[in-house]
Amino acid sequence: MQYKVEFQPDNVTIEVEPGENLLSAAAAAGVYVHAYCGGDGVCGKCKVRLDQGEVRAQKGTLKQEDWDNGIRLACQATVESDLTITIPEGVKESGKDLKRKPKTTRTISAKSLDALIGTWGVDPPVTKIYLELDPPTMDDNVSDMLRIMRGLKKAMPESREPTYDHPELLKELSVTLRDAQWKVTLLLLHGKRETEPDRIIDVEAGDTTDRLYGLAVDIGTTTCSGVLIDLNTGEVIDEASGYNAQIRYGEDVISRMIYANRPGGLRSLQEKVVSTINSIIEDICRKVIISPSDISYIMAAGNTVMSHLLLGLNPKYIREAPYVPAVSQFPLTKAAGLGIHAHPSVRLFLYPCIASYVGGDIVSGVHACQMAKSDEISLFIDIGTNGEIVVGNKDWMVCAACSAGPAFEGGGIKHGMRASAGAIENFHIHPQTYDPMIVTIGRIKPSGICGSGLISIVSELLEAGVIDQQGKFNRTLDNSRIREGEDGWEYVIAWGQDSLTGDNIVITEVDLDNLMRAKGAMYAGYQTLLESVGLTFADVDRVIMAGNFGAYIDLERAINIGLLPDMDRDRFYYLGNASMLGCQISLTDVNRFRDRVYVRQLITNLELADNAEFMNYYMAALFLPHTDMALFPSVAAKLAG
Amino acid sequence: MQYKVEFQPDNVTIEVEPGENLLSAAAAAGVYVHAYCGGDGVCGKCKVRLDQGEVRAQKGTLKQEDWDNGIRLACQATVESDLTITIPEGVKESGKDLKRKPKTTRTISAKSLDALIGTWGVDPPVTKIYLELDPPTMDDNVSDMLRIMRGLKKAMPESREPTYDHPELLKELSVTLRDAQWKVTLLLLHGKRETEPDRIIDVEAGDTTDRLYGLAVDIGTTTCSGVLIDLNTGEVIDEASGYNAQIRYGEDVISRMIYANRPGGLRSLQEKVVSTINSIIEDICRKVIISPSDISYIMAAGNTVMSHLLLGLNPKYIREAPYVPAVSQFPLTKAAGLGIHAHPSVRLFLYPCIASYVGGDIVSGVHACQMAKSDEISLFIDIGTNGEIVVGNKDWMVCAACSAGPAFEGGGIKHGMRASAGAIENFHIHPQTYDPMIVTIGRIKPSGICGSGLISIVSELLEAGVIDQQGKFNRTLDNSRIREGEDGWEYVIAWGQDSLTGDNIVITEVDLDNLMRAKGAMYAGYQTLLESVGLTFADVDRVIMAGNFGAYIDLERAINIGLLPDMDRDRFYYLGNASMLGCQISLTDVNRFRDRVYVRQLITNLELADNAEFMNYYMAALFLPHTDMALFPSVAAKLAG
Repeated sequence: MQYKVEFQPDNVTIEVEPGENLLSAAAAAGVYVHAYCGGDGVCGKCKVRLDQGEVRAQKGTLKQEDWDNGIRLACQATVESDLTITIPEGVKESGKDLKRKPKTTRTISAKSLDALIGTWGVDPPVTKIYLELDPPTMDDNVSDMLRIMRGLKKAMPESREPTYDHPELLKELSVTLRDAQWKVTLLLLHGKRETEPDRIIDVEAGDTTDRLYGLAVDIGTTTCSGVLIDLNTGEVIDEASGYNAQIRYGEDVISRMIYANRPGGLRSLQEKVVSTINSIIEDICRKVIISPSDISYIMAAGNTVMSHLLLGLNPKYIREAPYVPAVSQFPLTKAAGLGIHAHPSVRLFLYPCIASYVGGDIVSGVHACQMAKSDEISLFIDIGTNGEIVVGNKDWMVCAACSAGPAFEGGGIKHGMRASAGAIENFHIHPQTYDPMIVTIGRIKPSGICGSGLISIVSELLEAGVIDQQGKFNRTLDNSRIREGEDGWEYVIAWGQDSLTGDNIVITEVDLDNLMRAKGAMYAGYQTLLESVGLTFADVDRVIMAGNFGAYIDLERAINIGLLPDMDRDRFYYLGNASMLGCQISLTDVNRFRDRVYVRQLITNLELADNAEFMNYYMAALFLPHTDMALFPSVAAKLAG
Repeated sequence: MQYKVEFQPDNVTIEVEPGENLLSAAAAAGVYVHAYCGGDGVCGKCKVRLDQGEVRAQKGTLKQEDWDNGIRLACQATVESDLTITIPEGVKESGKDLKRKPKTTRTISAKSLDALIGTWGVDPPVTKIYLELDPPTMDDNVSDMLRIMRGLKKAMPESREPTYDHPELLKELSVTLRDAQWKVTLLLLHGKRETEPDRIIDVEAGDTTDRLYGLAVDIGTTTCSGVLIDLNTGEVIDEASGYNAQIRYGEDVISRMIYANRPGGLRSLQEKVVSTINSIIEDICRKVIISPSDISYIMAAGNTVMSHLLLGLNPKYIREAPYVPAVSQFPLTKAAGLGIHAHPSVRLFLYPCIASYVGGDIVSGVHACQMAKSDEISLFIDIGTNGEIVVGNKDWMVCAACSAGPAFEGGGIKHGMRASAGAIENFHIHPQTYDPMIVTIGRIKPSGICGSGLISIVSELLEAGVIDQQGKFNRTLDNSRIREGEDGWEYVIAWGQDSLTGDNIVITEVDLDNLMRAKGAMYAGYQTLLESVGLTFADVDRVIMAGNFGAYIDLERAINIGLLPDMDRDRFYYLGNASMLGCQISLTDVNRFRDRVYVRQLITNLELADNAEFMNYYMAALFLPHTDMALFPSVAAKLAG
């Protein structure tokens, strides 16, 4: 159930979850409300009037008189019914009324996501089968293993004779069978290909068929996440995540690779990511009260460097031209052998990578959204320090990685920061006063700007005419927030009194330059890849945005700054953590899992690093949104209007 | 080249290897020569006259006069040319001439052995292939592993895409490739079945195709042996053997199984057999100056208990009725994982077992002699404490184990001992004086009786009428060697003055009883197994004797005492260490190797332990050679004559 919130006088309505913060709802609806402190409740600017419906609110810094008149601080109120809200008309410092300009609502095509991902069954790559075996007699004293084989054949007459594990399985087998009085549950691992026989990987006493779990793991350079799935029902039971503990050895893959080459470095990095996965397993298992040994399969995906480090493979040659990974198809590995706290029989599957900078996370994502099964041409995008792009359909696919730099993760931005509490994630600017509306993650005082905030800020500054298309400030504007600071021209987003640190939070021309390089690299990547197969944006049927970051990007604003192509908004899909999704699907349905082979074989990598075409496109993209405005007709119209 | 030695006046000729000891040659020819001290040169009894040809001899205790007259001590002479030898006529103590009775020559059908084993090619289950790869470029920067795959596909266009090892292979791969400037040798493991893809298990710098070795290992309860084979040529390079170091925990499989159940016992036993194998590897490699890491495959066979212990599997339920092994088909294992000093990639194949007491050594032997490929019906016998019998042909096979007891290994025999230096291995008796002709292993003074000696002694005593068919001494014979000793009636084989220990060496009625039980169990086993498939000895086309012990058994005498069936002597084959032979063949020819699956599937086990039929046959066999003399017509004729 969702509640409708109507904002007046803009006459904008948005649907939100019960309990949604009212300031966040306004920001999402594109409705400007004065807000300096990010939602912390201290600046007292975000006053709104509750005309109809119910909110749960705190008085905060409001005067009793205002409270009695139905005024609330938006950042201190949560939506508890359908609402009608009026934003008080703003007043210029001069006393004149302000003419407010309504903002466009954020576009999300989430509804049609299911069409991409498709359905999947509950037919996991591990299954359990309960057998009641006849105890051996003098007339029938075949080996314990052979007895199990016979029992299995009887239960599944069509199946091929399975193989079995050693030594984990065999060591305890005889005792287990007798302790369990010949009533046991087999854990069977299906072959990676349909033609391969099953493999018995565990024999458990009694009937344990009701306990069958799988863990999907996304191994990010920064964050690792795990999702526990009940493989009997396909249901997601719980999830957990945490920073990749490798982070102490460097923030990005490059510094990790450098560290890997130090004595003992590779081993430390391997241990750290394993300890991260172990923490996730521990967290989830404690929460849902299962034993880690009830997890029967782990499917994981990560970029090429993360994958190499998890398996303890030196990524040395990934870093040096011509950027060659040791291996692209990772062998199925026993998780315990890597140090993961799992039953010794449990396998870890790691999605194959395509190239040094197009990894298993991308293959998993492409696999999840079934690009390789569609006639339609998809443009799959994962925006980040290393941006990955895949174009294609069921007949062909090309991919490329482009080094966008760390701007979207806060790197190279004066007040940039990761998407954590206090980061400005949404921003609107008043078109006349240039006053900001700031929403931070966690709605506390702002301490910096994360990627989605940066896109919002730059787009708003551009639309408001505070900066021009070259990313330079309009030096003619007379506003205290627009000024020449110690690092050149800047816009003051938050004054020290409203920030968490007590310092001003600003965005500078240097920041703008870095952002333009980052978005320019992505856009040039789309163009180069499309041109390599003789296509243009007009041929692209849909744009699929993967990655956690992608899910937080305001589509309209990303197009405004030229990070995304100016296409029909209905063609954009937010896939979120596609890498995790691919793992979840593979874990739940072995038929979908087996499809992945086709995905990997279909994709061809294009190296952009030395590509002259790419460099030309890149230079042309260092503009807001682009030097060739014909590529951005809707933005051109907006800026002209 | 062999030399002919003609013995007169018996007019018996035997062919021997150059350098063969003359006393041994006489014993093998069945020619009686006085000899009390086993060949040590001290009793001075074995005087013979050299009529023609050359021997290398030492004078020993001979008088100069005898020496000058061409007399030599047989035990101090070796054959260096064709010879004619005269045995001086014996003289009774009374002064009367003795009438000597010539003995039958030992029958060995070794010549036709090749027909059983067949030929095999040099097409080992591991191969090497040398590749010169193109270094990566920006236009071609697939992963190192994929580059190898492409190189392999180019070199072997017909082959399926192989799988590959992890982590042993992948960890060093990138560095190896670059250090070797992309010139590498792949070590490929062929699938156990033809349908399985190859597996890359090692990548070596440069061209190492000239170094490809395999090790065949026979894991005996007492002795382990290894044979190193050059897999490029199929030639045996060298061999080594040593006592199974587990022996400190018990002489037989039963005591080992008991020890395995003590805390830490299983682990100690596993470590001991591994250390034994490591010593063998070390010995061989030092001798032929190769590195253990040049051994690319290990094929091993052992009985079911030895196989379990090598893999660290508890053999507990093998010992208890209904005698169930944990596993009968052992998974292909990484040798290094067991603690064997081998390259981490090297696999150890262990022949599957059929039942708790019919192990991989038997399967390997049956596999070696191709019983499963012949129309003819074979009776395959391995005599020992645990005797194993297999009957069948290409269409069916049954097997059984019968507990013969340790008599053939010296157990339960007053002066019994293992077949080591000082053990009486051959024996003749003078039909009139009952004086012995003793030949010991190593031709030193006798210290005991080994299995083949025991068979000789009992057969000779029976033929000479010293004992009757019930195994009782003829109390009417007036001879100092035949007497009532402290353990009842006995025959003195060696007086203290001629023995190594200074004690008399005797054989007692208790010993005879134990021997009869042992041989009776074997014979009853043949009968029960044949009857189970509705056959008799008349249907058996050939008898194949496997095992080291089998190779030392005097066929004629073994039939005399009823250990072997009384069949046409031409139908007997000595296979020797068939277990080792099977490993050698499998190691050299993957096609023969793959055949083994069929062998294992064909054999059905029959449990004799509770079998009433077997007990009846056994009771009837406690006689020399048998209560039913119709089963032993040739022996009946001999005893009647």
